Amino acid sequence: MQERHISTSVIRRLPKYHRCLRELEKNGVDKVSSSALAEALGFTASQVRQDFSCFGGFGQQGYGYNVSSLLSEIAGIIGIDKSHTAAIIGVGNLGRALMHNFNFKSSGFELVAAFDADEKIIGEKIGEIEVLSVSSLEEYFKENPFDVAVLTLPKAYVKDMAKKVSELGVSGIWNFTNIDLSLEELNVAVENVHFADSLKLLCYEISK
Amino acid sequence: MQERHISTSVIRRLPKYHRCLRELEKNGVDKVSSSALAEALGFTASQVRQDFSCFGGFGQQGYGYNVSSLLSEIAGIIGIDKSHTAAIIGVGNLGRALMHNFNFKSSGFELVAAFDADEKIIGEKIGEIEVLSVSSLEEYFKENPFDVAVLTLPKAYVKDMAKKVSELGVSGIWNFTNIDLSLEELNVAVENVHFADSLKLLCYEISK
Repeated sequence: MQERHISTSVIRRLPKYHRCLRELEKNGVDKVSSSALAEALGFTASQVRQDFSCFGGFGQQGYGYNVSSLLSEIAGIIGIDKSHTAAIIGVGNLGRALMHNFNFKSSGFELVAAFDADEKIIGEKIGEIEVLSVSSLEEYFKENPFDVAVLTLPKAYVKDMAKKVSELGVSGIWNFTNIDLSLEELNVAVENVHFADSLKLLCYEISK
Repeated sequence: MQERHISTSVIRRLPKYHRCLRELEKNGVDKVSSSALAEALGFTASQVRQDFSCFGGFGQQGYGYNVSSLLSEIAGIIGIDKSHTAAIIGVGNLGRALMHNFNFKSSGFELVAAFDADEKIIGEKIGEIEVLSVSSLEEYFKENPFDVAVLTLPKAYVKDMAKKVSELGVSGIWNFTNIDLSLEELNVAVENVHFADSLKLLCYEISK
């Protein structure tokens, strides 16, 4: 499939389609119309059709989309089928929450390592993963390069760590630290997670 | 200011404008053009102008926007100036991470209480907040009603808790549990936080 340039806002909707379709598949739904998808996601049907047309249309919309094949096409575009690796840097409360409860696999990742600077935590086993000393990060990476660094460390260390993992050669940074890291500085893909954006939306909703 | 119907996608960009403007203000920037704002946010300048026109335009774009007044106008639209209250339900790793590190104030909220079911945690003080027994939630709420319940409890309890706090009378639910809660069922505002959406975007970026 040949892809033309696809706008960021279309791309940003792909995970939502993916999540919605997986839910439908789990519930045993075989076919879904663009309008049903749109309704579930709060988009318009024409938006959905327009988004899908960027990727070649995904089959005959008149009869609805086949949920499983649409799901696997979108998973393929996102790259979930490619099995990337990730390592957590900073095993505080948030790092632990991710290690215990977040399903990396279903977003296309395997969590392979975790690092912290605190002697009291180093060596602890969380699930399958033993916490390693952050001082061994470079050495570890050389033998076991991973694709994404998950930054859940204290703010003060973020910029240096982002620089370090970029230089080591990660492809992406998943940044939870509320310090905006920009792509240009680092030359790697960055996703900044902003809890506050979502709370502000709730603020808007309840203030109306 | 009279507001016409404003689309969800415009609303969803408000927190991003707010975050970006606060950053500019912190850095001592007085004036910002729509194109500079657009660039910082990855939008187009015409998108920014179009968004702002929904709220009356925010002053003379030809000379750029005044950062402080634009910030306070957007804060006003979001409702950040209204001082809402929130309580955390579920003091596991994620609940603790929010209590320790998340700045509720800067999103317009005061965190007033935290609840858990685990006897070992009840009575613990985290920052200024003492963890209360979830069995006292109803009683607590009657005397100290809060606006938003932050759900960071195990998945298995989410639907029941969402129903319970809705019936008690919260205005909104900030849901971290990866169980999608819908507005219609509950008759309160809901924001579902999906970490996975963001990781999937990173997956897309590094798979390209």
